[in-house]
Amino acid sequence: MKKTTHVPSNLTKLAKDFQSIDQMMTMLPVLKKMPIIDISEVLSLMENKDLFTVLCEFPISEQGEIFAEFPLVKQLSFFQQISKKRFSKIFEEMPSDARADLFQILTQQEQIDLLPFLNKHIRENVLALSSYPADTAGGIMITDFATVSRDMSCFEAIQKVRQDAPSKKTIYYVYVVGEDQTLVGFITLKDLIIAEPDVLVNDELHTEFVFGYVDESSESVAAKIDKYELVALPILNSKNQLVGIVTHDEAIDVIQAEHTEDMERFMGIISNNEELDYNQTSIFDHFKKRVFWLVTLAIVGIISGLIIHSYEGALAQMMILALYMPMVADTGGNAGSQSATVIIRALALGQVNMKSWFAILWKETRIALMLSICLGVLAFAKVVFLSWETDIPAAYSLVAIGGVIALALSLQVISSTIIGAALPLIVKKVGGDPAVVASPAITTIVDISGLLIYFSIAATFFNLK
Amino acid sequence: MKKTTHVPSNLTKLAKDFQSIDQMMTMLPVLKKMPIIDISEVLSLMENKDLFTVLCEFPISEQGEIFAEFPLVKQLSFFQQISKKRFSKIFEEMPSDARADLFQILTQQEQIDLLPFLNKHIRENVLALSSYPADTAGGIMITDFATVSRDMSCFEAIQKVRQDAPSKKTIYYVYVVGEDQTLVGFITLKDLIIAEPDVLVNDELHTEFVFGYVDESSESVAAKIDKYELVALPILNSKNQLVGIVTHDEAIDVIQAEHTEDMERFMGIISNNEELDYNQTSIFDHFKKRVFWLVTLAIVGIISGLIIHSYEGALAQMMILALYMPMVADTGGNAGSQSATVIIRALALGQVNMKSWFAILWKETRIALMLSICLGVLAFAKVVFLSWETDIPAAYSLVAIGGVIALALSLQVISSTIIGAALPLIVKKVGGDPAVVASPAITTIVDISGLLIYFSIAATFFNLK
Repeated sequence: MKKTTHVPSNLTKLAKDFQSIDQMMTMLPVLKKMPIIDISEVLSLMENKDLFTVLCEFPISEQGEIFAEFPLVKQLSFFQQISKKRFSKIFEEMPSDARADLFQILTQQEQIDLLPFLNKHIRENVLALSSYPADTAGGIMITDFATVSRDMSCFEAIQKVRQDAPSKKTIYYVYVVGEDQTLVGFITLKDLIIAEPDVLVNDELHTEFVFGYVDESSESVAAKIDKYELVALPILNSKNQLVGIVTHDEAIDVIQAEHTEDMERFMGIISNNEELDYNQTSIFDHFKKRVFWLVTLAIVGIISGLIIHSYEGALAQMMILALYMPMVADTGGNAGSQSATVIIRALALGQVNMKSWFAILWKETRIALMLSICLGVLAFAKVVFLSWETDIPAAYSLVAIGGVIALALSLQVISSTIIGAALPLIVKKVGGDPAVVASPAITTIVDISGLLIYFSIAATFFNLK
Repeated sequence: MKKTTHVPSNLTKLAKDFQSIDQMMTMLPVLKKMPIIDISEVLSLMENKDLFTVLCEFPISEQGEIFAEFPLVKQLSFFQQISKKRFSKIFEEMPSDARADLFQILTQQEQIDLLPFLNKHIRENVLALSSYPADTAGGIMITDFATVSRDMSCFEAIQKVRQDAPSKKTIYYVYVVGEDQTLVGFITLKDLIIAEPDVLVNDELHTEFVFGYVDESSESVAAKIDKYELVALPILNSKNQLVGIVTHDEAIDVIQAEHTEDMERFMGIISNNEELDYNQTSIFDHFKKRVFWLVTLAIVGIISGLIIHSYEGALAQMMILALYMPMVADTGGNAGSQSATVIIRALALGQVNMKSWFAILWKETRIALMLSICLGVLAFAKVVFLSWETDIPAAYSLVAIGGVIALALSLQVISSTIIGAALPLIVKKVGGDPAVVASPAITTIVDISGLLIYFSIAATFFNLK
């Protein structure tokens, strides 16, 4: 038990406290034994010049791997301060997906400066991979994988894999391709090891397999890796030729980014589908992501104002109604957001499907009934026991007023819960992402329905205005 | 290109439409070629009696795998309708984690009925695994892994793995243990294949590795698998002995469940940390998860009522203030929820740390300033252009009133954004999960601060009451 994940955070502290290059060199033997990710975390804190010196102490293949784990902005600034010829060596050793990601953010001139130093194979690979949008399977796949042909023996296949392997990131699945590179099946490394050496690959071949297409969304690809518990998913072009694989760790990154996107959307923040860091996003970009919904909903809020305006007379006659307006509006907003959250997650995890929409709404209605009874009783008690100071018209007792407000709140909870549950289903039905049903939007909608319920019930019972 | 992921959904439809056992038997050859997950999806729709007949058509090892993928309630009902002796054969072939999960939900009597039919090794394994809480590493690990000792040659190691492998779910990492079963390092299957056959395992050994402990939280273990991009993470007991591994697909499940939990908590739904299905959760359980926050916040809403009550006189003098109350409250709630969402995600993804809390709040303040200008201008325009019908006191112009309401809204947006950003940081500081800062709670808090800002500014400028 020598190195653990606890050490790096100390080292990170060290690297921060003693940033002199000499001290880093002293730490080098310890550093070299750590996982690549941790080495990268420590080195990314250094100045580019010192970083270069330290990086040169690692074998060239590790230089690429360590560099690939730096944040993109760090990669870019390092790239800009080092000779392109020297950099090309590091670049060639980076995983193909990280290479394409960096290449995509270079200016055209920077790309032109770098390309001549790359060997032909790498150059073509970079140009091909960086042509795919970041949110497609093509944008997240790597091109290092092992292939064999079906007429090899398992022994020959292992020999082939052994030969190719050092340059492959993942060889747990060995893909079996025809002469035209179309994917005919796969065989796991485990199968190869277990099989008798002279058995043909063809006999162990899995011809039924899950795959993705290059232009498929990264989210769909990640969902397949999740569902089928794969270590990697083969990616095909339109001719069914194998062009790359997406690995399980990419799938986790996609799922994490999707979560951020869902949560932001649900809070009325416009998500631009790029995996951006909070700190790296400028204040103006943060502003742009948030302002649209805030302004839109404030405009829609005019309707609430108009409703209150039309009941101004009623309000003047019975001022106590103003006191409980926020409670009715807020409770409705909360209940609606809750049911929307539950339905959005259930849809995202595939726990409910569109066919059962009636059953879902019926279930939500029954839940809402239980909630409305609790909250109605609470509202009644609040009005009766806490309003002794408020002037009320002599014609009505506090109990009657409490009853009416409790009834209004109960109806508001029921309608809000149903609206909150129905909106994601409707959005899904018309082909949208249910997560766009933002909680602020629900709040604003049920505010309007709530005020209508509240005032129309009060006006009816008390003959106001 | 024969079977793809598109077929299963059709088959699911088929299984639903023609539930006769004969038709299912006809489909069997097609079914058998599908991935286990898909077979399981189709079969889970059948009646237990028919299901048993169809299941018997599969090899016994696949019976366990297919059965393990059924929802837990289906597993339970099947278990209850079949002889325990026959069931023990299926049970023994299930992955060890799925076995423990089912065992944990059996009644004590059911456990006692099943145990005698299990072989000794499996019985001990089930009892050991089911003793770990579901949200710890022990609760999600599997006990099938490959171990070798360091003095073996790579050739011998491969022979050992070949021998053991059929019973191991994952052999991509081969663990190297000492005589007392303490973990001394690992070697990947890839290393073994690439190495010359007579090289000692000891020479290829990775002695620096990431691991987890049995009592560590499942979320912490999943985060390690994510960070270090592992296919599996070794799990040790307090004596540093290797007792299990957690695989990458479990990590995805944990991350998904964690996200549901975060989102539910954020919407004021009490999350009970169990991965429950929407449909399988009873109405009463749904009710219980939601009612606590709704009632609590409705009670806290009393404060809003008291504030309005104390400004009743002001409201009566200037009824136009009532019209813009919802806009101020809602916009504040939305702005606060947005900043809280952004900070909670940034904390969850490790993009910001507690040391930079001042920088975060300063950044949020500047974003809020930009938002407040937009919304202030909007509020001013609303008041000036849409309030011609409302009676206002002769002493003040609509422009003056618009200016005051715009100022109040701007201050509300700024204070709400800062409150929304600060609350998760405070919760994290005192050691809690930032995601418990529920959006409904923020809404309620900024409602109170908003009403105070709104009425105190209006009262000051217009000398009300």
